[in-house]
Amino acid sequence: MTDATSVADYVQARRAEVDALLASLLPAPPDCPAPVAEAMRYSLTAGGKRLRPVLCLASAEAVGGSTADVLSAACAIELIHTYSLVHDDLPAMDDDSMRRGRPTLHVVAGEGMAILAGDGLLTEAFHVLAGLQGDPARVLRAIGLIAGAAGPIGMVGGLAIDLACVTPDPQGHTAPPLDGAGLAAMHAKKTGALIRASAVAGAILGGGAEAQIAAIDAAASEFGLAFQIVDDILDVEGDAAQLGKSPGKDAAAGKPTYPALYGIASSRQMAEACIVRATASLTAADLADSWLLGIGRWIVERRN
Amino acid sequence: MTDATSVADYVQARRAEVDALLASLLPAPPDCPAPVAEAMRYSLTAGGKRLRPVLCLASAEAVGGSTADVLSAACAIELIHTYSLVHDDLPAMDDDSMRRGRPTLHVVAGEGMAILAGDGLLTEAFHVLAGLQGDPARVLRAIGLIAGAAGPIGMVGGLAIDLACVTPDPQGHTAPPLDGAGLAAMHAKKTGALIRASAVAGAILGGGAEAQIAAIDAAASEFGLAFQIVDDILDVEGDAAQLGKSPGKDAAAGKPTYPALYGIASSRQMAEACIVRATASLTAADLADSWLLGIGRWIVERRN
Repeated sequence: MTDATSVADYVQARRAEVDALLASLLPAPPDCPAPVAEAMRYSLTAGGKRLRPVLCLASAEAVGGSTADVLSAACAIELIHTYSLVHDDLPAMDDDSMRRGRPTLHVVAGEGMAILAGDGLLTEAFHVLAGLQGDPARVLRAIGLIAGAAGPIGMVGGLAIDLACVTPDPQGHTAPPLDGAGLAAMHAKKTGALIRASAVAGAILGGGAEAQIAAIDAAASEFGLAFQIVDDILDVEGDAAQLGKSPGKDAAAGKPTYPALYGIASSRQMAEACIVRATASLTAADLADSWLLGIGRWIVERRN
Repeated sequence: MTDATSVADYVQARRAEVDALLASLLPAPPDCPAPVAEAMRYSLTAGGKRLRPVLCLASAEAVGGSTADVLSAACAIELIHTYSLVHDDLPAMDDDSMRRGRPTLHVVAGEGMAILAGDGLLTEAFHVLAGLQGDPARVLRAIGLIAGAAGPIGMVGGLAIDLACVTPDPQGHTAPPLDGAGLAAMHAKKTGALIRASAVAGAILGGGAEAQIAAIDAAASEFGLAFQIVDDILDVEGDAAQLGKSPGKDAAAGKPTYPALYGIASSRQMAEACIVRATASLTAADLADSWLLGIGRWIVERRN
């Protein structure tokens, strides 16, 4: 069930479902003014791995839930992820001009419209989540979890730590460079929190028992860390065409990375160790025979 | 019950409750990184009329609900309003350096941190809403309503229309100037939608019957329009010290305004007509003997 070919097929099938719903999920004119509708769509349909929604769907399936019921939630999480990329690419943040192989949104639509499109994607995510069918108490729990993970104690907080380390504030202050523990804590918020929430939300909405939800939470934390370590490795080793963005950018910006702190070989071992720990968590909850571990391997072995 | 002095007292009392909860509502260090915690707090505690939360509380009371139960929701709406001000003040948007009598957030914390603080306020609002006590179905309905009103078919959409009229996109295009109908439609989204949602969410969470919710919705639409007309008048007639921001800015930017399209006297009459229609809606639903009409008068008679 979890050999490489079938995992690739599984991921591809779920991704196709996600892309199909994403194409029709956003409001369009005349309800939604055309400039912001086009801007949101531009960023949302630029491709992307759809890791978070696929993980959400796989978690729902792992606990015996139906992926059809959870698909809207999975797509809402991708809206949140996409908004974070749009805002993070802005000149005042990471100042990236390429993303997923295309010019970033602020380059094509202007900074103001990019800010608004990001705001729109984030807000629309909660609109979609509030409309989910199913047990209202579980839906509210998932919304709270996702909002917490995306917000100031989660992703936004991690982006703020990152920004404070790199960009001087108006008084000229920059935060001191992060050590290994600080780097891990930053990534746990910046990237890890939403990846983790994607999996846990899938387990909650899929009707999982508390022990299943806890095991998936633990495994997804490891996946999130592995994802970031591999991201840092790809930033050193990757190639622009495959990445769809410029490699070497983090190092050039003086950002702390796993390869910079630990070297490439140790970083790879750290990523592998994440998968070992995730396997233990899922096995203990009798969830090893799901697609989740294959997705973990996919995270570690990806090339973009 | 609705004479001017007691309305002022009522608004002041509700505003004090809102301010008290807002002071403790946001996440703080160590969970929330200090730079973004400080940035969010700076904007949230800068004062402000708290119109939306007061309206939310008054609606809950009008339908017989307890304001204590609705207070968190009212504050969540103020988080959303505050985020919208932070982002709208950014150089790529309205480029305002003063707000509520203090330098705007991007001036004191930098553009990147202001973008993140806005994102954090918006996301945290849904975190708070997801944690509301009470009937989960009503809570979900309120979340959906608020997200719809704040998102691309609501406030974000209105801001996008405004931006497209004033700021050329990277291709140098600016949308044609709005006529009267276009101006009303833009404001219904930009300002009206969240004011309306504030009142309706209060009615929903306060346990209102459908006829009461519909009447409050109709009245709050009128309040929203009156609010914007008066805002435009104050932009012409107001004084910077009382406004806490620079008057004359809209006219200087060539933005369409009610006074520019209709003159000051007709604009005032239009605002008064809104209150007349709101009174009719509330009276028909036996809600005229609530604080809502007094709040409508406060909206029209305000000086800032």
